[in-house]
Amino acid sequence: MTLGIDLGGTNARAAVVDAAGHVLASARLPLSERTPSAVVDVVCAAAHLALQSAQRDVRGCGVGVAGQLRGETGVVAVAPNLGWRDVPFGKLLQERLGYSVRVVNDLSAAAWGEIQVGTARGASEVLTVFVGSGVGSAIVTHGRLVSGAQGFAGELGHVKVVRDGRLCGCGERGCLEAYVGGHALLAQMKEALLGDVPTLLREKVKGDLTKLSAAVLEEAALEGDAVAKDIYERAAGHLGLAVANQVTVLNPAHLVLGGGVLSHCPHLRERVGEAVECFSSHTSREGLKISPAALRDDSGIVGAALLARELR
Amino acid sequence: MTLGIDLGGTNARAAVVDAAGHVLASARLPLSERTPSAVVDVVCAAAHLALQSAQRDVRGCGVGVAGQLRGETGVVAVAPNLGWRDVPFGKLLQERLGYSVRVVNDLSAAAWGEIQVGTARGASEVLTVFVGSGVGSAIVTHGRLVSGAQGFAGELGHVKVVRDGRLCGCGERGCLEAYVGGHALLAQMKEALLGDVPTLLREKVKGDLTKLSAAVLEEAALEGDAVAKDIYERAAGHLGLAVANQVTVLNPAHLVLGGGVLSHCPHLRERVGEAVECFSSHTSREGLKISPAALRDDSGIVGAALLARELR
Repeated sequence: MTLGIDLGGTNARAAVVDAAGHVLASARLPLSERTPSAVVDVVCAAAHLALQSAQRDVRGCGVGVAGQLRGETGVVAVAPNLGWRDVPFGKLLQERLGYSVRVVNDLSAAAWGEIQVGTARGASEVLTVFVGSGVGSAIVTHGRLVSGAQGFAGELGHVKVVRDGRLCGCGERGCLEAYVGGHALLAQMKEALLGDVPTLLREKVKGDLTKLSAAVLEEAALEGDAVAKDIYERAAGHLGLAVANQVTVLNPAHLVLGGGVLSHCPHLRERVGEAVECFSSHTSREGLKISPAALRDDSGIVGAALLARELR
Repeated sequence: MTLGIDLGGTNARAAVVDAAGHVLASARLPLSERTPSAVVDVVCAAAHLALQSAQRDVRGCGVGVAGQLRGETGVVAVAPNLGWRDVPFGKLLQERLGYSVRVVNDLSAAAWGEIQVGTARGASEVLTVFVGSGVGSAIVTHGRLVSGAQGFAGELGHVKVVRDGRLCGCGERGCLEAYVGGHALLAQMKEALLGDVPTLLREKVKGDLTKLSAAVLEEAALEGDAVAKDIYERAAGHLGLAVANQVTVLNPAHLVLGGGVLSHCPHLRERVGEAVECFSSHTSREGLKISPAALRDDSGIVGAALLARELR
């Protein structure tokens, strides 16, 4: 058994996971403060609850964090949702838990889950693209996660799709994530609703803008609403082309599409598949299998737990 | 010692190379016919000349081919300059030479040369981008060449940079190579010269269009010629953004820029560096080293010979 931890910006979830990727027990606790020591407290409490409930011992822990990691050092370089910069989270957590801790990017963890026990089981050349509040990807070649020189590989959300385009959360302009991520879709809908243009978006949420979502956007766009279509088509176009170009460069055997936005917007997922068909080099897409993430919300926590087994 | 072969569309070059990547002797022969058996004849003749001149035995052979390879099978899937489709070149050559042959893409071979004994020596996370008559790249992660599911990884020349853009040699539209490759630059200059617009391009080659080259284009563009600038700026823009986006996704430690066009157009190479600085995600480019290919014309042949040592 190993422990998998999914650390987001608002919750920490811990699960006891077996070698086959089954979740034996899990617990979720909200983060109150976001200081590293407060977060360590909450993570340890969640881990304790999961362990109690599973009544099993574990021999390692993997943590997926929504942020950029410095390779295998356990240092979180940037985690915008937590407001962290260069936090040695792996070390802090390991001191408290007493066994080895491996910290990885949450999407790398999710990719690993899908590759080990999910939809891409057994594939050694995989590209996973997750669109949730942000956009990220993970690359597996020769059966290993590609981490890059400093551990920042896979930042598909920050490829530039428009010169001097929309401002992204990362501080740069024109990033894919600034058009396609869940946060960006909401922001674009709210901007559009500032005007008095009639749109189904307003009707669908009965004026309650807190109910806006990517799913509402897709629905309105498919019903032909001009405001929604404008945002949706731009997002689909940029996402499709960016993914198609990565297929051209990486020639994966399997493309996995996951994350909240893609799981709630099945048509957007189809559009990505069509773009790959249209825009990837025909040799690179030969034999490519495209499928949605199978473990859904569990990809990350299962992947993190399974990565902990790989510790050398 | 191993034998390195560089098989282009017009010549076959063979070299005897030692473990340190030194070329002990080499020979180049022109291809007359392009049938697989005629090419095997010429390659064997060049190999024979190089071996005679080096007076050494070799224990394996690596071949770099300008084309797409089917993984490690030795089958050339597509080689436009040779007019080949699915030719089992590795097998044919091995039967004649009598020792093991490894066939790889010429740019993968060049990348390997630069990583083993060239400018990126010792780096385990490398992106190489070569712009010659075409555009290609090779990716090394965890110290290994990324070949992808079918061996087609690295086709940076065929990422789409313009929707429904210029027709590329591959039959698709809007590929990077259709704007930036040496062939494409020539084609765009010739198209521009069909009109009567005054341009330095015509003056620089004294009306002899066979003298047009990427270097002439760069010179004219830097002198402010509008026609040349139009082509050059578009090429620099597309190439820079495409390379910057790959740096974002792959987070290499070292970016190597090589190939005829980039070695004859130093300003274009600088522009790529500037684009990486402007458009790559700031975390991914942290600590990135950028340098020109050090082995120049020998990268490919040395890399192919060194890859033959890696045969398992």
